[in-house]
Amino acid sequence: MTSPAGDALPVTYDDVARAHLRLAPHAIRTPVMTSSTVDARSGARVFFKCENFQRMGAFKFRGAFNAMAQLSPEEKSRGVVTYSSGNHAQAVALAGRLLGIRATIVMPADAPRVKLAATRGYGAEVIRYDPASASRETIARQLAADRGLTVIPPFDDPRVVAGQGTAAKELFEETGPLDLLLVPCGGGGLLSGCALAAQGLAPQCRVVGVEPAAGDDALRSFRTGSLQRVRNPDTIADGARTESLGTITFALIRAHVADMTSVDDDALLEAMFYLWERMKIIVEPTGALGACALFGGKLEVRGRRVGVLLSGGNVDLVWAARRLLASQPAG
Amino acid sequence: MTSPAGDALPVTYDDVARAHLRLAPHAIRTPVMTSSTVDARSGARVFFKCENFQRMGAFKFRGAFNAMAQLSPEEKSRGVVTYSSGNHAQAVALAGRLLGIRATIVMPADAPRVKLAATRGYGAEVIRYDPASASRETIARQLAADRGLTVIPPFDDPRVVAGQGTAAKELFEETGPLDLLLVPCGGGGLLSGCALAAQGLAPQCRVVGVEPAAGDDALRSFRTGSLQRVRNPDTIADGARTESLGTITFALIRAHVADMTSVDDDALLEAMFYLWERMKIIVEPTGALGACALFGGKLEVRGRRVGVLLSGGNVDLVWAARRLLASQPAG
Repeated sequence: MTSPAGDALPVTYDDVARAHLRLAPHAIRTPVMTSSTVDARSGARVFFKCENFQRMGAFKFRGAFNAMAQLSPEEKSRGVVTYSSGNHAQAVALAGRLLGIRATIVMPADAPRVKLAATRGYGAEVIRYDPASASRETIARQLAADRGLTVIPPFDDPRVVAGQGTAAKELFEETGPLDLLLVPCGGGGLLSGCALAAQGLAPQCRVVGVEPAAGDDALRSFRTGSLQRVRNPDTIADGARTESLGTITFALIRAHVADMTSVDDDALLEAMFYLWERMKIIVEPTGALGACALFGGKLEVRGRRVGVLLSGGNVDLVWAARRLLASQPAG
Repeated sequence: MTSPAGDALPVTYDDVARAHLRLAPHAIRTPVMTSSTVDARSGARVFFKCENFQRMGAFKFRGAFNAMAQLSPEEKSRGVVTYSSGNHAQAVALAGRLLGIRATIVMPADAPRVKLAATRGYGAEVIRYDPASASRETIARQLAADRGLTVIPPFDDPRVVAGQGTAAKELFEETGPLDLLLVPCGGGGLLSGCALAAQGLAPQCRVVGVEPAAGDDALRSFRTGSLQRVRNPDTIADGARTESLGTITFALIRAHVADMTSVDDDALLEAMFYLWERMKIIVEPTGALGACALFGGKLEVRGRRVGVLLSGGNVDLVWAARRLLASQPAG
């Protein structure tokens, strides 16, 4: 298998299928939900893959577990390290607990206390750093070198990508052929994994990645063919604030993804609360990117069978309550 | 089958089973969800029956549809009427649309616009009245007489009770034997229907009804053996503000329910948001009554297999946001 650029791609559908066997006893096979209200609003027949119901509340568990389960006994006994203040941190911490692997997480000193507590709650060691003075990746790599730890990257890793793709594999197994699959895109691990699953199980399905407009580096990378970056984008989609795609995910996305699109934060907030209100499920802002694109009118969805990957549900309710009240018309 | 008082009871498990056959093609077989976080908090193995995912967002669809599907062709052609400002209104409206029956709903003039809109959205005619000057039940019965409509009561009706019981039937079919089943109680339709389902499928299971402390008329009725009433109780559990149990539901509850318990509003609000945050599902205050009792410490749940009926998810998000922010510690 080669990408348009001709490089050999390090992950294929077979890796997703193998990851699925590995994950099946440990990950939740999350439900696929439908809603006649959503179908009426969009004009499509929509299938939501609810990774907000995944362990630790997001798809990230799949990739982290799949990567860590494949470590050698020696690597396992030495432990792992990762850098994240978000869902990947909790995913590595939980997978570590399940697999008996010591997990060390590098987090910015200003990370929300609730995320810190959740990560420690899974038994991980948290190392905090000053984001103004150091890069979290540098610190993690230094720790890895000093302590012999294995780095579990948040997305740019073949085992992580293959794990994330199992979400779409389960979706296709349940729905059969789809015309379109909408997937949130941050670093591109979920998007490229899902595109591999589509290639293996539903090759007619167009896989489209969705980014927040303020952090549309992947869209620009996809359009220009060269890796674009963005710095601390101002968006509520905190899972998609990633600086850029990775080398591996960019190559996979160029090879297997049909298109990219973006949505602005106001529309994203509206879509998120729409899912809360109508489908009675809590989805985080990043998790609602696909649903927002579905409603946005930029894509041909009418009369189509559309899969939407709801990637996670870890949202601070107090933050959400403030945003909701601020968005209400006065009076 | 007779109640302790010796009156013949007008509904049995067989009615629930027949209702289930009638409903199966139309109602959603809602998921049963589990949560390791909830299990850890409660010490029990907990199974949540998620009627917040039912059509129109609450179990009420089951009873309304089951009652209306059994009308004669003549009754169907004349139409139905009911009185409710809550979930039963939407349930009758939706069942009417599905069955081709004209539905008229009597609602107080001060009912929230969103409920009015939802009910009209299902195609029902809404008649508003001044709650200070008339009783909704009187108005509905007058309309029924004038227009030849059939009244579909919100709970005190054998067909409604049998329909509501199908929720617990599905739960037992999925979980097998349970030690305890916690069910919200307003007028007692859901509670008595679920108790019938337990009697048929899981006779060892103790069925316990849960009320808000401010509106604990059913608990007092259960304890004293005579029907107690409450007037406009001040509770956030709007689905349980009912003045009293009905004749039918009281008899069924005396015959088949093991006990009643109550929870206060502060604990209820906490339990509701706990479900939102940890299970990523939207449950309305009334819907969280069972979960609140589970956490409340009054019941023996440790080491038990416990079913919890989450009865609905129709909550005004703006209201919930205000309550959440008001409940936060200052600073």
